Amino acid sequence: MTDFLYGHWSVMEALRANRRPIEKLLLSDRMEEKGMVAEIIATAKERNIDINRVQKRILDDVSGGANHQGTVLRVGGYPYIEVEDILQVAKDRNEKPFILLLDLLQDPQNVGSLVRVSDAVGVHGIIIQDRRGVSVTPSVVSASSGAVEHAKVAQVTNLVSTMKKLKDNDVWLVGMDVGVNVPPIDKTDLDMPIGLVMGSEGEGMRRLVRDTCDLLVTLPMRGKVGSLNVATAGSVALYTAWQARGWHGWVHA
Amino acid sequence: MTDFLYGHWSVMEALRANRRPIEKLLLSDRMEEKGMVAEIIATAKERNIDINRVQKRILDDVSGGANHQGTVLRVGGYPYIEVEDILQVAKDRNEKPFILLLDLLQDPQNVGSLVRVSDAVGVHGIIIQDRRGVSVTPSVVSASSGAVEHAKVAQVTNLVSTMKKLKDNDVWLVGMDVGVNVPPIDKTDLDMPIGLVMGSEGEGMRRLVRDTCDLLVTLPMRGKVGSLNVATAGSVALYTAWQARGWHGWVHA
Repeated sequence: MTDFLYGHWSVMEALRANRRPIEKLLLSDRMEEKGMVAEIIATAKERNIDINRVQKRILDDVSGGANHQGTVLRVGGYPYIEVEDILQVAKDRNEKPFILLLDLLQDPQNVGSLVRVSDAVGVHGIIIQDRRGVSVTPSVVSASSGAVEHAKVAQVTNLVSTMKKLKDNDVWLVGMDVGVNVPPIDKTDLDMPIGLVMGSEGEGMRRLVRDTCDLLVTLPMRGKVGSLNVATAGSVALYTAWQARGWHGWVHA
Repeated sequence: MTDFLYGHWSVMEALRANRRPIEKLLLSDRMEEKGMVAEIIATAKERNIDINRVQKRILDDVSGGANHQGTVLRVGGYPYIEVEDILQVAKDRNEKPFILLLDLLQDPQNVGSLVRVSDAVGVHGIIIQDRRGVSVTPSVVSASSGAVEHAKVAQVTNLVSTMKKLKDNDVWLVGMDVGVNVPPIDKTDLDMPIGLVMGSEGEGMRRLVRDTCDLLVTLPMRGKVGSLNVATAGSVALYTAWQARGWHGWVHA
């Protein structure tokens, strides 16, 4: 499988992470070699990656009309890992598992944002289901500012089975829900092995996914509109969980 | 001044808030009257607002090619208020001022997201500067899911002068910054009258804005990419502040 990653950050982080087979770097024929583009070219040269200057319309075409900034990297498919590998990351770091599970999210922008925040708070891995939800497409790479190139993402056939497997490994599944009877997130001890479960845009978690959670928490809300985007809610929840862990792993002067 | 608000939520919340002069509702000639569209039409009829069926290309045109969902509302300009009005909102609610200040943000998506979160946490008002930064355009209305139609937004000529005026009113200005010497946000008492200051995308706060803050806080960060989008950082900060206020104003069963 071949992906065309586009935009400065996607291309740079894919080169830095160096986890996918890299086929070639495509640059717009009119682009000057300065700033971040110069860095990208230098990194590609170090790795002996072919660099092709092409017409802008070719880049428009391979990136599906996205904002490619004159920079496209032709690479192999995304290197998904297994759920066991995520648990191993936690073990290797000697940390309680901290996992994000996404139940059929539809918008690459939301998935990308959540991956970027996951990177910032030190999540060990992200689990998505392999049909009906977004997978790690070039749009997700772009929306994550390239963070997903470093992240551990497992794509599973059945999210509920995976949740049960995590429970067998003593991971508590915490579902983000809405409703006046759901306790607020700060009243729950999140300094334990957790899998935070986010439902899809508009729909929330599927019934069976919700029922499989060990506990449900909510983000309080007031105001006239009374709803939050899933990426916003997830970002706040991930930070709340990391704060509960005392910002573990943060190097502070 | 005339704005063309587009999309279901923008149109619905503008009708609900009823703060702008409303000129007419434009609907795509092919759209069926069901779901949210039916609600919009019913609300417009109650208010005796003209409803025009037009060709889709006219909607494409007035909305500048945005995703208008077949629904456009032609309205007067955004009803900005004064900084004093924001302080009055806090007084009327008998709450310590909770204000968001945006220093020359450039992306309507970020401003809209921050307004939506501000609504959810009960911010009393949002302050922006009137040149060089984003104002409340139809894109911002859309990105806020219509929340900005209910929000109090002041547009000032000079953000630093406004910050000084807020200080004279005993508001503490808390700037969101990055850097290893900046204390983490949870180590600061945010249960006081505060103005949270967010810098622009990429640039952060301008020097004089930063220098005018009473204190600086940071969101801890680890990971490979090590940066957050301003809307994400602001959302987490707003929730942290509201949590410090004990979710004041939240109606919980």
